[in-house]
Amino acid sequence: MGKIPYKTYLTEEEIPKQWYNVRADMKEQHDPLLDPATLKPVATEDLYPIFCEELSKQEMDSTTRYIDIPEPVREFYRMFRPSPLIRAYNLEKALDTPARIYYKFEGNNTSGSHKLNAAAAMAYYAKAQGLTSLTTETGAGQWGTALAQACAFFGLDLTVFMVKVSYMQKPFRKGVMETYGAKVIPSPSDVTSVGRAILADNPDTGGSLGCAISEAIEMSMTDEKCRYALGSVLNQVLLHQSIIGLESKIAMEKIGEYPDIIIGCAGGGSNLGGLMSAFMQDKLTGKTDSRFIAVEPASCPSLTRGKYAYDFCDTGKITPLARMYTLGSGFMPSPNHAGGLRYHGMSPILSKLYHDGYMEAVSVEQSKVFEAATLFCRQEQILPAPESAHAIHSAIEEALKCKESGEAKTILFGLTGTGYFDMSAYMHFNEGTMNDHIPTDEELELGFATLPPVD
Amino acid sequence: MGKIPYKTYLTEEEIPKQWYNVRADMKEQHDPLLDPATLKPVATEDLYPIFCEELSKQEMDSTTRYIDIPEPVREFYRMFRPSPLIRAYNLEKALDTPARIYYKFEGNNTSGSHKLNAAAAMAYYAKAQGLTSLTTETGAGQWGTALAQACAFFGLDLTVFMVKVSYMQKPFRKGVMETYGAKVIPSPSDVTSVGRAILADNPDTGGSLGCAISEAIEMSMTDEKCRYALGSVLNQVLLHQSIIGLESKIAMEKIGEYPDIIIGCAGGGSNLGGLMSAFMQDKLTGKTDSRFIAVEPASCPSLTRGKYAYDFCDTGKITPLARMYTLGSGFMPSPNHAGGLRYHGMSPILSKLYHDGYMEAVSVEQSKVFEAATLFCRQEQILPAPESAHAIHSAIEEALKCKESGEAKTILFGLTGTGYFDMSAYMHFNEGTMNDHIPTDEELELGFATLPPVD
Repeated sequence: MGKIPYKTYLTEEEIPKQWYNVRADMKEQHDPLLDPATLKPVATEDLYPIFCEELSKQEMDSTTRYIDIPEPVREFYRMFRPSPLIRAYNLEKALDTPARIYYKFEGNNTSGSHKLNAAAAMAYYAKAQGLTSLTTETGAGQWGTALAQACAFFGLDLTVFMVKVSYMQKPFRKGVMETYGAKVIPSPSDVTSVGRAILADNPDTGGSLGCAISEAIEMSMTDEKCRYALGSVLNQVLLHQSIIGLESKIAMEKIGEYPDIIIGCAGGGSNLGGLMSAFMQDKLTGKTDSRFIAVEPASCPSLTRGKYAYDFCDTGKITPLARMYTLGSGFMPSPNHAGGLRYHGMSPILSKLYHDGYMEAVSVEQSKVFEAATLFCRQEQILPAPESAHAIHSAIEEALKCKESGEAKTILFGLTGTGYFDMSAYMHFNEGTMNDHIPTDEELELGFATLPPVD
Repeated sequence: MGKIPYKTYLTEEEIPKQWYNVRADMKEQHDPLLDPATLKPVATEDLYPIFCEELSKQEMDSTTRYIDIPEPVREFYRMFRPSPLIRAYNLEKALDTPARIYYKFEGNNTSGSHKLNAAAAMAYYAKAQGLTSLTTETGAGQWGTALAQACAFFGLDLTVFMVKVSYMQKPFRKGVMETYGAKVIPSPSDVTSVGRAILADNPDTGGSLGCAISEAIEMSMTDEKCRYALGSVLNQVLLHQSIIGLESKIAMEKIGEYPDIIIGCAGGGSNLGGLMSAFMQDKLTGKTDSRFIAVEPASCPSLTRGKYAYDFCDTGKITPLARMYTLGSGFMPSPNHAGGLRYHGMSPILSKLYHDGYMEAVSVEQSKVFEAATLFCRQEQILPAPESAHAIHSAIEEALKCKESGEAKTILFGLTGTGYFDMSAYMHFNEGTMNDHIPTDEELELGFATLPPVD
């Protein structure tokens, strides 16, 4: 074999035709969703008022190992997939490390991230069920943009509740969503009762993802032809995002590689869950013993400082309860925190894998994240999203450990997206005005105090 | 052969190893650059104080057909090339046209455009000559970003004079350039004498590309280890950009296609010149008879309403004179004009080819450009740069003519970049507050009055 190329692409024919459901290979399943009123496990049909039926089934399916990707979704995928697996030759050179560093780059699409993988599936299934519209929330804006793109393509109306502080900071994200025909409402808003209640309590709030979720669900309930879509945390999202890891694995096979370490940033878990699941299968089935590292912001440390407990998925407390690592649905990351990765909880699947010792977690302060981003963009020529730069930071740390030990490990990380809409954060960093806020134990206790009395 | 894929990539080995110099196949050369003081043709050495030596030689070389791409530039290219040739299946479907529409997408890199192709070459040659810094100008920001990326990689300091109105409208472009270590100065500025003179005349001016060029050249002259770099118009730029067309041609051969019509937006000519040159070779040598269409903004119509005359390349009148289609170096496009394509002149090579009947030109009003952009982004899922959307508009028009005539022509256009930093223009369009300004004959006369008395 000659030199490994900078970028390895699959052909369009090689793009996987099925998603992989990691639950089918997990020794133990995560605890069931509970109805908050009865504390009884939720049945599939109970989800039908929230999600469309096919997605509700996927949410509850822990046994089907592979699920066919519908042809219209595959057609959509062919507009931006396969994404490249990139060898970070120039980063390796700058670090002078014997490690071989690879990244799966999911940002070369207008949404600027991997979110389009799940958005395509959700819009397709909604259309196939005869629905006419969807609602959703967005924080940093990638998810809202991705769903706006997919809804424009499949012919659905979309209303996006955008966390107010992001709405103000990122007017251009709103512009992109509107260009795709979506309606964008800053949250909390006065168009839902939960929004009005939150505003009455705290008129000056900048909002939160949990609050925007509550508003989006409430609005979806008012229209029989409308459902809600969520871009992270859910089992269905990890299923759709499994395409990232499946493609990565095939690409690595092509060049004769297998990762010793798999690294992903983790907010709700959509990217890490998607990147790692095809490799986690090998670990769960005893074939390999790779390390998996979740990297989260020190300002929103659900895995590293959260509790493994039943919690609401939203601030308005209208969702089912999920057992996950959580900071409490009332937790709010500091306004200094830039970019996404600001959700109070973590995917129940990832939470379970972490709890059972299959995965590690680290947290990184914001200024160190932007240091890593700056080094990376000058060497690799891609300006990363702040979210993705968490994984870069950890990949650099592991590569430097290799330099110390002389080991030539193979590192794979997820470059989930680009930072083109995050320049105000970069400018704060460049000007030296970026603050690192790490919540004190007392601040965390305020979040934990909002946990429901279950267990 | 099976179905043509959505995206055709070359392998990294297939990326051309030489640039193509279209002048070597032109029957007649464009008129020489003239020294404005003596009106004598400029010699290669006369350019050495402005450009580094290798680039000066490339600028004047009309006979070498193929020029080797240096290995470090090829290494840089491998980080973002090959770019995909994309079949616009979904746009075709939306238009219900028998035409086959392809686009070469050059926007999947952080600069957001094809500009990185020339930036890599210029930074490399400057470094190889032992220089320590470059200066340049930027309007919409793609070129400044591209050169900032290349300078960060090759280890050069960079000062960018950014047209003041863009500097104000696009603070995030400045942020990207600074993240790559460049110094960004709004132009006109008080750091050059030409800037101070312009400010003295007109303290409230928003600046122009021609003025920023003057400032960048003046600054480069003050330091023996510094030279100036320009991202369009020049022969060297068309040479470096020839990689676009060379790759496109190989990709089309792979899928058994050859374009009947080649379409590119045209400001100074960097993209169109690069996209078309490999195909123009076939036309110049009598092998094919494709149509070539330059699409320019109605607000800055150098080909369609300009004069073919000797003119300065800058507002400060310190550059050599070039014979080109021009609106006069004093012409200023309306402040309503969004994006790039605002230069007063046009590449001498393209001007000559147009003058000699090898190429057509059309102009499009801004609101029609954004209509085309919106249709395109909803179908093809890529939000185009306003510049690129000029070519989209023309491609759609040609595809609709095919629908009328029933002809299944093959159309190739250049999707030069993405519009992620142009959202304020999109938002004006979405809100119905975008104005189309087409210069009146009287306004054009004001520009022509600034032409030097040559010929």
